[in-house]
Amino acid sequence: MSHRQLSLNAFLHDTGHHEASWRHPDSSVERAHDIDFYIEIAQKAEAAKLDGIFFADVPGMWAATPYRPTAHLEPITRLAAIAARTERIGLIATASTTFYEPYNLARLFSGLDILSRGRAGWNIVTTQSDAVARNFSLKEIPSAEERYQRAQEFLDVVTKLWDSWEDDAILADRESGLYFDPEKVHAINHVGRHHQVEGALAAPRSPQGRPVYVQAGSSNDGRVFAARNAEAIFTAHQTIEDAKAFYDDIKSRTRTFGRNPDHVKILPGISPFLGDTEAEARELQEYVDSLTVPAYGLGQLEGIAGVSLRHLELDEAVPVELFAGSGDVLDNNRSRLQVVANIVERDRPTLRQLLHRLAGARGHNVVAGTPVQVADVITEWFEGGAADGFNVMPPLYPQLLDAFTDGVVPILQERGIFRTEYAGSTLREHYGLPRPDSIYSDAAGRSDAVATA
Amino acid sequence: MSHRQLSLNAFLHDTGHHEASWRHPDSSVERAHDIDFYIEIAQKAEAAKLDGIFFADVPGMWAATPYRPTAHLEPITRLAAIAARTERIGLIATASTTFYEPYNLARLFSGLDILSRGRAGWNIVTTQSDAVARNFSLKEIPSAEERYQRAQEFLDVVTKLWDSWEDDAILADRESGLYFDPEKVHAINHVGRHHQVEGALAAPRSPQGRPVYVQAGSSNDGRVFAARNAEAIFTAHQTIEDAKAFYDDIKSRTRTFGRNPDHVKILPGISPFLGDTEAEARELQEYVDSLTVPAYGLGQLEGIAGVSLRHLELDEAVPVELFAGSGDVLDNNRSRLQVVANIVERDRPTLRQLLHRLAGARGHNVVAGTPVQVADVITEWFEGGAADGFNVMPPLYPQLLDAFTDGVVPILQERGIFRTEYAGSTLREHYGLPRPDSIYSDAAGRSDAVATA
Repeated sequence: MSHRQLSLNAFLHDTGHHEASWRHPDSSVERAHDIDFYIEIAQKAEAAKLDGIFFADVPGMWAATPYRPTAHLEPITRLAAIAARTERIGLIATASTTFYEPYNLARLFSGLDILSRGRAGWNIVTTQSDAVARNFSLKEIPSAEERYQRAQEFLDVVTKLWDSWEDDAILADRESGLYFDPEKVHAINHVGRHHQVEGALAAPRSPQGRPVYVQAGSSNDGRVFAARNAEAIFTAHQTIEDAKAFYDDIKSRTRTFGRNPDHVKILPGISPFLGDTEAEARELQEYVDSLTVPAYGLGQLEGIAGVSLRHLELDEAVPVELFAGSGDVLDNNRSRLQVVANIVERDRPTLRQLLHRLAGARGHNVVAGTPVQVADVITEWFEGGAADGFNVMPPLYPQLLDAFTDGVVPILQERGIFRTEYAGSTLREHYGLPRPDSIYSDAAGRSDAVATA
Repeated sequence: MSHRQLSLNAFLHDTGHHEASWRHPDSSVERAHDIDFYIEIAQKAEAAKLDGIFFADVPGMWAATPYRPTAHLEPITRLAAIAARTERIGLIATASTTFYEPYNLARLFSGLDILSRGRAGWNIVTTQSDAVARNFSLKEIPSAEERYQRAQEFLDVVTKLWDSWEDDAILADRESGLYFDPEKVHAINHVGRHHQVEGALAAPRSPQGRPVYVQAGSSNDGRVFAARNAEAIFTAHQTIEDAKAFYDDIKSRTRTFGRNPDHVKILPGISPFLGDTEAEARELQEYVDSLTVPAYGLGQLEGIAGVSLRHLELDEAVPVELFAGSGDVLDNNRSRLQVVANIVERDRPTLRQLLHRLAGARGHNVVAGTPVQVADVITEWFEGGAADGFNVMPPLYPQLLDAFTDGVVPILQERGIFRTEYAGSTLREHYGLPRPDSIYSDAAGRSDAVATA
């Protein structure tokens, strides 16, 4: 395969990414907390040679609503269970730098990377919700600036911890009785503004050296953080033009940090309704849209916009100026607000139409069509400089992932832009990312080797 | 089975509980970080109908020594992977109340209990090490009093979180669009000295309601905490007399808290060297003892005693008065110090003999004999009011667990004191513990139901 290759993840989300998917008569809502449901999905994604599966996360309720599945299992434990029943597929979990201690999180991901033999990825988020802050002894969420400062220091700490055992630190020399080489296990002695961590990590270096660093924020703070640190970026765009602008911006920022832009994979979301005909696909989309509860969607939209929308009728056109202003918007909602503003300005939808647009995948790109049509969108974005791959967000699980893997993947394989077999065994290898050396690897004999008895 | 029944756990620990086990020519040291090694052990323990498997843990290096495997994977992720490849056996992980946020830990154990279908147990520890504190932005470990105060509040918080979704909170009513009943999901609104947590937990109530509460400290603070909260207690005793005194003390304290003493299982450690003859078992023990590195054992012993022992010769008798005093001992080491003081006073060992005694299982009861002899010890303690079961600590994994399950378990089954089939599917059912009701279960309509959009 000499062509540049697509990366494809399956973004798992309860019964599907459409907020009303659980109300579909054939939904798997009764299995939403059954680990075997997710294991079966992961095994199918692996059979289709996808790069990875991904869970979003927030350490609190998704939203204060009884109108959709809001209870969600902790993702790292879920992926550890899935790891034991899969062989190759990458396993990406979201975790918040604002609400974890770095030593604990470093251990959880080190555990996942070791037990999965090198398949872990970490979607690094700072979390923007006051409600979540109140689960962690805070009255309100720190500012975006404060959160990203802490996130950068957090990332530095866990990087040092993951590097603290050099790759060849374990000797296991029965003869001499030396289990490890004390010169190759390093106290990190981190002293910073937010964290003071002595180390070393209580685990050997993991198969990937470090899990893959993933990032999903599109605010300015988020873009700087991503360009400096991320190896894969999950992003939301409605049009190829918006996606291309984002792609160019990130790749260019990456260069200013002295990084190789090929080592930052940009993966927009795509949420495909698939049918044997375009009409069939649209019919399914319209049916699932019709299951939404407007009160819920309205609450979500008000959260994004930072203004009340209760004065609008459902079949009234949404005033363009409503989304043009700044409103009282949380930082991380700005990029999502921009997506909504663009839709309103371009398409002039009624409120009901706008709610349906957002119901599909919260601002991600929802497409309805045949496998060929969806493959065409993917190919066009991939070859048009708008994406290195996609985070696939089936509106209804497992049916619309099955339709994707059975229908769309073979077309992409025929076109030579997606693998027919895994070439490697780690997520880094699937993404074409290098395995980083330990920052301590040239440091044998350094004075920060751990004190030993 | 009308007899009172034994509980038996396999306490997993790298290549085995003997500190020099990894140096045995047939040790599995090369597999110490291979999840399949632990999955195979768990599957064997399950085939023998054991109640559970157990991992100790500390969020730092086991000890600052290069002389034994000190790198250990995070236990909750390990157990999640093991859960996916087993069906019935209980899964008990240690986690520290001093170094976790309660909301995060509540989610991890909720995840484990849900994905294992009700097999999770939590060994609640407060952690006593200054070195660990320095991994968490502290200069030194808080006092035992401070740690146990925080632990009690931590336990109250996670209990409320695990109860915050009533058992019948999920409606998943496609017709009405209501996923859960907002009257049955509760903000916990905890405001305490150490924690302020709003809740609810982002997960439905788990199969066991709450994971099984396990405790292992034997200091006075630890005993009070255990009598008040624990449903299973892991403990270390060298003689049946010491074990019986502890057993009576805990059961009596339990009554003073108004609890049913049958709902607190007391499980001493037992570390059996097994052979076809007693001579063969002793020979194996002596061989593994001979592999110890004295400098390491001496460091460990000095930590327990709080005094230097470097002036002693290895073959010199240990002066009784050395362990009689108080020394500068960390709180949680007091109970271990008492075990050592008892050995020295009773048996007057040389330093080398004492190091070998402790090398086996750090003060737990090491026995060497035939399967019948080991079964006799277990039966005597169990029927003599010294134990409700045992935490089995094979000196060498997997060989000496295999010898236990193949040799000792069938004898206990023949004697009618150990199950030949699982009667239930959860760890609570294996231990004969009740499933707790949610503290909110009579509270439909309470004003702390979560705000909903």
